[in-house]
Amino acid sequence: MPAMTSDRRRFLRFLAAGPLAARAWAQDAVLTITRPEDALNLSTVTSVAVEEVGKALGTAPWYQLYMPTTWDDTAKMVKRAEAAGCPVLAWTIDLLAGRNTETATRFSRADQRDCLTCHATSPTAGANTQSNRGKPMFAGLSGSMNPPGANWSYVERLKKMTRMKLVLKGIDTAEDARLAREHGADGVIVSNHGGRATETGRGTVDILPEVVDAVGPQFPVFVDGGFRRGSDVYKALAIGARAVGIGRPYIYGLSAFGQEGVERVLDIFRAELTLTMRQCGTPSIPQISRPSILRTGARV
Amino acid sequence: MPAMTSDRRRFLRFLAAGPLAARAWAQDAVLTITRPEDALNLSTVTSVAVEEVGKALGTAPWYQLYMPTTWDDTAKMVKRAEAAGCPVLAWTIDLLAGRNTETATRFSRADQRDCLTCHATSPTAGANTQSNRGKPMFAGLSGSMNPPGANWSYVERLKKMTRMKLVLKGIDTAEDARLAREHGADGVIVSNHGGRATETGRGTVDILPEVVDAVGPQFPVFVDGGFRRGSDVYKALAIGARAVGIGRPYIYGLSAFGQEGVERVLDIFRAELTLTMRQCGTPSIPQISRPSILRTGARV
Amino acid sequence: MPAMTSDRRRFLRFLAAGPLAARAWAQDAVLTITRPEDALNLSTVTSVAVEEVGKALGTAPWYQLYMPTTWDDTAKMVKRAEAAGCPVLAWTIDLLAGRNTETATRFSRADQRDCLTCHATSPTAGANTQSNRGKPMFAGLSGSMNPPGANWSYVERLKKMTRMKLVLKGIDTAEDARLAREHGADGVIVSNHGGRATETGRGTVDILPEVVDAVGPQFPVFVDGGFRRGSDVYKALAIGARAVGIGRPYIYGLSAFGQEGVERVLDIFRAELTLTMRQCGTPSIPQISRPSILRTGARV
Amino acid sequence: MPAMTSDRRRFLRFLAAGPLAARAWAQDAVLTITRPEDALNLSTVTSVAVEEVGKALGTAPWYQLYMPTTWDDTAKMVKRAEAAGCPVLAWTIDLLAGRNTETATRFSRADQRDCLTCHATSPTAGANTQSNRGKPMFAGLSGSMNPPGANWSYVERLKKMTRMKLVLKGIDTAEDARLAREHGADGVIVSNHGGRATETGRGTVDILPEVVDAVGPQFPVFVDGGFRRGSDVYKALAIGARAVGIGRPYIYGLSAFGQEGVERVLDIFRAELTLTMRQCGTPSIPQISRPSILRTGARV
Repeated sequence: MPAMTSDRRRFLRFLAAGPLAARAWAQDAVLTITRPEDALNLSTVTSVAVEEVGKALGTAPWYQLYMPTTWDDTAKMVKRAEAAGCPVLAWTIDLLAGRNTETATRFSRADQRDCLTCHATSPTAGANTQSNRGKPMFAGLSGSMNPPGANWSYVERLKKMTRMKLVLKGIDTAEDARLAREHGADGVIVSNHGGRATETGRGTVDILPEVVDAVGPQFPVFVDGGFRRGSDVYKALAIGARAVGIGRPYIYGLSAFGQEGVERVLDIFRAELTLTMRQCGTPSIPQISRPSILRTGARV
Repeated sequence: MPAMTSDRRRFLRFLAAGPLAARAWAQDAVLTITRPEDALNLSTVTSVAVEEVGKALGTAPWYQLYMPTTWDDTAKMVKRAEAAGCPVLAWTIDLLAGRNTETATRFSRADQRDCLTCHATSPTAGANTQSNRGKPMFAGLSGSMNPPGANWSYVERLKKMTRMKLVLKGIDTAEDARLAREHGADGVIVSNHGGRATETGRGTVDILPEVVDAVGPQFPVFVDGGFRRGSDVYKALAIGARAVGIGRPYIYGLSAFGQEGVERVLDIFRAELTLTMRQCGTPSIPQISRPSILRTGARV
Repeated sequence: MPAMTSDRRRFLRFLAAGPLAARAWAQDAVLTITRPEDALNLSTVTSVAVEEVGKALGTAPWYQLYMPTTWDDTAKMVKRAEAAGCPVLAWTIDLLAGRNTETATRFSRADQRDCLTCHATSPTAGANTQSNRGKPMFAGLSGSMNPPGANWSYVERLKKMTRMKLVLKGIDTAEDARLAREHGADGVIVSNHGGRATETGRGTVDILPEVVDAVGPQFPVFVDGGFRRGSDVYKALAIGARAVGIGRPYIYGLSAFGQEGVERVLDIFRAELTLTMRQCGTPSIPQISRPSILRTGARV
Repeated sequence: MPAMTSDRRRFLRFLAAGPLAARAWAQDAVLTITRPEDALNLSTVTSVAVEEVGKALGTAPWYQLYMPTTWDDTAKMVKRAEAAGCPVLAWTIDLLAGRNTETATRFSRADQRDCLTCHATSPTAGANTQSNRGKPMFAGLSGSMNPPGANWSYVERLKKMTRMKLVLKGIDTAEDARLAREHGADGVIVSNHGGRATETGRGTVDILPEVVDAVGPQFPVFVDGGFRRGSDVYKALAIGARAVGIGRPYIYGLSAFGQEGVERVLDIFRAELTLTMRQCGTPSIPQISRPSILRTGARV
């Protein structure tokens, strides 16, 4: 399970693969993309089943869970991911209360389709239950997700349910990172869902230091959000992140040039990170540490 | 008197209803708008009498006082608001020295009407005495308001005059909040009249912490100014405000869509506040507190 | 000598009147402009002699000295100002090393006149000696000004030369304010010549606190530079300035509307200052003090 | 060796002369440009041999070394510079890991020439080996430069190889400045190669104080990067720099007006520095010190 080792000798990246990317990955010859140290974090709302993705990659991806609203459905989904060989279960907890998608709401006025085709109750309801039912991971399930009554005891219950490692995705304070660890999580991903969850919070790179200080470095702390350059990745590793997640960057490459585009994006990240490491006199990952970076001119 | 309880279990909002809004409220079926926990703060320069507004709402609003220049007139106006059942008298003290309305002054050059029709002495005089005489709350009064000699003893005199709760609206320092409490006020509204009183002061959300620390939380501290999102309201509540006032937002809704517009604006605030509360792990109002927010990256 | 009293009961303004303004003042009926508490600071390069200005104003102005390069010429000029009744000699020390007038240099390329008509030695020489000779205050003098060898002993020598009060104009550090006082000056004007002397220094309102703390409040500290609003003036008085100088604002009024324009500008300043004083609860000048203002959110 | 004395009585400038400038310097009558206190820092990739430049200048320049990838080639190049009379060897260490030249990469798409004409292995390879072979300082050498295995022991080895003074160019932390001194360097140039080496670091003027505090003032600390005005130079001298390097400014002058342009640029720097020195009361170089400057309002 490359992402979860405390062995920082290998640079890790994980890709947050949503539905579009999953299909692309499955269709293209993806074996050459994934290097042993990268991990793909496959979303629950994927358009390609986890078993297929694992077969195409040659190794099962991480499974990014949006929790179904009943424990029965959750157990089924989790067991299925486990059976597929997924090493890590990343439960996304930053959208449990819904989301304020104003741009999408405005664009919906131009959408001529009948809303109730996909949305069971109302055009603006967050559940997307109807559209989920058509997705492979919801086969045999209700389609409803993100239980509003979720609390910290759910972490323990989820952990008991599986032998996969459990990380909580969407942690944005030191306090919550400690609670995650106390309740049995094996790691956290500092994330604000690409700035699309709760508004007006901090950028994740600004949250990362307090989380690493609170629970790391033995306890794995991952981060995503806004990482566009190899030098960005360098800074997260210097602060103490175990690995860095990217979303939009590889999707830009995928949209423009398909598989080649994704590969080029990953090469750019790798080349820039290597250059930064060497210029900073830290040519191997374990040498990267906080003295190499500053925040607004001061030591982190 | 919903606004004045120390019971923070209920989320409170008050709407600063100027003359235009009052008429709209009275004309439309306003009963469905006001929820028990909202309060309407009716301006002295309303175009609809307080008794009518109270009848349309089903409960008397707060009364926002611009003090007439004589105590006789003041006593009459205050007694009338009390008789109408208003629970709170909010004396606005941030315009006592007038106002620098440059944009209005420039536009007056395009106004073809005879100035003296409304302005008794001069086109730029702040008193607006002549135009006030046509307004229902000034029936039988001179129309002149904002006595230039007002001082802190006026607070005590006003308090003795009525059994309504007295809050001072337009407090913008901790020092003045303490003086307000010492002189008998029952609460303060941190406000700079929507940025239209004294120039180059602080935003009210930046003033709120020092005022709450100085006189709150037992002593009610309200705030208005710039609250556009449910997340803005969340921050004020976290700092310690008892309730938040909105002005322009509901007027935008009113101007665009009338009654429906106002209702939609209030729904947006409510939905955004609820989402923020749940995402921050504080699903009920009493749980909202300062650790949930930061100011320029530091604890408030 | 209105500007020099330690009596802060009267609000003082002084106007830095350059050559254009002096003529305007002399030509128009200026008696109504100058109130007892304003002072006009007449520049050495005025196009109207100091005696004429004094006659038109009804009282002699302050004399703003650009020191001639010889002590003989300096003594003649100073004695003449003293004989005219000038109460204050303001020696401008912020251009002694010249000035970097890039915009003027660029525009000179479009100037078809023979440079040597006005400039004795070179088109870009700072002395302007030739053009000075045509100005009334340089009658009988060489026209050359700003001695490059000037040092602190010149302050003492200048002081001994006259019974006028001596202020140094162009002080921009606490250290220099102390040196000014030690060497016999009666006051200082914190100034950077409207940002047209040494580049990349601080704004004068940011320098004022350390100067007032170093030498004030008994020792008069004046300030100019960027004061556009009555609220700006309020802040300088709150920090501890004895009076505030304005330059561009009255020139805007003069250029647009002549005498009426100047009067309107002064009325605007006065009205805004009065409004600010009353709104801040400091209705008389002696009540204005530092607790009324903040700098970047903190006490000054 | 003007640049290396601890005699700060003379203002020093050095010009980072790349290939284009070297030819210009050699072709024009450069004797009048270089004043005894200026130094030219000639790049290894110069298009004019160091011997020619020295002859044209009347004195040998500093030699800016990009280290060849073998010690044999390095020894040859260094001995040649020494034989030409160069007083200082400035080893550039900020590009050892390559560079991320995105703009050049984008423009290469418009370049119709066969890439392999100049680039031996790949269009984007950093080595530029092929194009180097045509340059005079690489006569008889492989053309390959910037050994990837370079470490601090190279400093000692380079120092032993020559009697020229050795400075390291591209130091951007206090830690590295100390290491440079410990390993035998005679000075450092705080530089980030005009912002074209490692991205997102600090501006050199922000690094300079900690480097001067760490190893100066006896140990010479030079700085380059962004110095456009005489007042910029003043600030570096005040912080404690021994001399300031300029690149783009003289190239602007050269491109626009050739030799006259370069001379004019140097005159502008000199005049602005002199004006700033005099206005700040520090008319000679040794008087310039930290109390004369502030950083974001505070003492440096």
